[in-house]
Amino acid sequence: VRRVRDIGEFALIDALARFVPSSSLVIKGIGDDCAVLRMGDRVMLVSTDMFVEEVHFLRSHAAPEQIGWKAAAAGLSDIAAMGGMPLFGLVSLSAPADEQVSFLESMYQGISAAFAAQGAVLVGGDTTRSPDRLVLDIVAIGEAISGRYCTRAGARPGDLLAVTGYPGQSAAGLHAIQNKMDAPQLVERHYHPNPRVREAQWLVAQGGLHALIDVSDGLVQDTGHLARAAGLGAQIERKKLPVAAALTEFGKKHGLQPHPFILTGGEDYELALALDPVRADNILEGFAGEFEIPLTVVGEFSDKWQEVRVDGEKVPRSGYDHFRA
Amino acid sequence: VRRVRDIGEFALIDALARFVPSSSLVIKGIGDDCAVLRMGDRVMLVSTDMFVEEVHFLRSHAAPEQIGWKAAAAGLSDIAAMGGMPLFGLVSLSAPADEQVSFLESMYQGISAAFAAQGAVLVGGDTTRSPDRLVLDIVAIGEAISGRYCTRAGARPGDLLAVTGYPGQSAAGLHAIQNKMDAPQLVERHYHPNPRVREAQWLVAQGGLHALIDVSDGLVQDTGHLARAAGLGAQIERKKLPVAAALTEFGKKHGLQPHPFILTGGEDYELALALDPVRADNILEGFAGEFEIPLTVVGEFSDKWQEVRVDGEKVPRSGYDHFRA
Repeated sequence: VRRVRDIGEFALIDALARFVPSSSLVIKGIGDDCAVLRMGDRVMLVSTDMFVEEVHFLRSHAAPEQIGWKAAAAGLSDIAAMGGMPLFGLVSLSAPADEQVSFLESMYQGISAAFAAQGAVLVGGDTTRSPDRLVLDIVAIGEAISGRYCTRAGARPGDLLAVTGYPGQSAAGLHAIQNKMDAPQLVERHYHPNPRVREAQWLVAQGGLHALIDVSDGLVQDTGHLARAAGLGAQIERKKLPVAAALTEFGKKHGLQPHPFILTGGEDYELALALDPVRADNILEGFAGEFEIPLTVVGEFSDKWQEVRVDGEKVPRSGYDHFRA
Repeated sequence: VRRVRDIGEFALIDALARFVPSSSLVIKGIGDDCAVLRMGDRVMLVSTDMFVEEVHFLRSHAAPEQIGWKAAAAGLSDIAAMGGMPLFGLVSLSAPADEQVSFLESMYQGISAAFAAQGAVLVGGDTTRSPDRLVLDIVAIGEAISGRYCTRAGARPGDLLAVTGYPGQSAAGLHAIQNKMDAPQLVERHYHPNPRVREAQWLVAQGGLHALIDVSDGLVQDTGHLARAAGLGAQIERKKLPVAAALTEFGKKHGLQPHPFILTGGEDYELALALDPVRADNILEGFAGEFEIPLTVVGEFSDKWQEVRVDGEKVPRSGYDHFRA
């Protein structure tokens, strides 16, 4: 008997993909951050993300607004990961019958605020009973501006691997929460990630962007998704990684290396991308003029190997697997 | 402290609706069977429905294909409840790590088959870990044909209340399953409901349809939704209720009245509607020529009272409330 834990999340998705038929209205089904669908004259992007109490969040660690914001941010980041414009959010909610109404109201407020912060609107969903745990499913619906979007497949040998912002802060924030360390800026990054919606839209509008993903499972693992989708390998150089000042300080204070947080921590919802090396300088310069966060080249893609290497060494597929965590 | 069980499902939805802002792209947000949204030149219909093991289904009672089909049917029926055309389905799935892969494959197959049976296509979703129970969230996305759809609000005094098919069979089927009674046709209706998508599209295209809903919570309760949305009361006449032959036979065999199943049983996914009395004869005749299932007038709407009456007697709001069940 094959069980889910034996094959892991990604082989499960492959197994279920057999039941996803093709259709002329479906530009891209299972396998990327969003489904890409035709709706009249528009190209629509849709993602769903489910969050289960005790697996994805703990009430003891997070306020209801924070749980709601963070869940909505994951859905919004899926739209960003294709360079799209978020339009609508829906939320299905399963709660115990003795749940406080005010708790659910606050959670809904957090979800609504996260969508509103990206110019999108929460439009409804479903509410139902759970025997015990809270379960949330966030549906994010967006549009590919002028029909343009960028998938995770498309990196070419020699493309540069770049990342937005300063990843690893959310994971360090979680570490601080779990170990009752004082690190308010990192904790804030954990609870209130800002999906890179505007940045992704700008990048997709430039020539020279070959592949795009959001860093939800960790930089190594999501770089691995970019590499595998293109049939390539990738290399990350530690010395090039952007390290947030708050993470450097946190590391010094507690004797922790910042790099493991950056390489394997997810949920910052930064973007990882493959850039045409010929266009990269222009894009990096333009990005610096447009945005306050950095866009940093941290490695490259290659057809000489098939895995993700860090400073030339193979690393195991490290990062988040829902069924093996 | 207000708890969800104290206020019930419908007051909870009202409380959460405060966090659903208005937007020019949102034609209808929370409060109907689907959200009605603008997407370019199209009017899009979106619904979500969450199903939790032990609350909405039991593995001991249903095969995985049946669980999948039934969940997808609920989403498809939400599209039917507005008269729309289903296009896409997504499913978020939370499963224990020791779940059998083949169980999830069969469930996905059932979901995919239900969407395909209505000309729609399953396009993907999310998979994640649950500590124990299976949780499914079905997202159904459809389109209002030529921008036309029908809401649950719109009944007028004197409108006729009509219902498609033979409701109550699903509830009787569930009763048979729970009590180990032999009633294969009713059990089949419970496991494989057929949402009335084509029928609803036909009805919306006729003049004279004022309001439409799917019977998911029971005829009395869903008639109550139609009545309240219009600020009216409604009357149902027992002698007019369509009784399936299988339900009559089942009732005789086990000494059970068929009417309670018809009045309070949900999940047949039949349609309840308000018809202009002047147009009703034409619509009933046209429907009989188009479809094999009946369309039956079972009562009327009135502004002389505010609740649902059965044979002139007030009935308590009976049917399914997720948080009070």
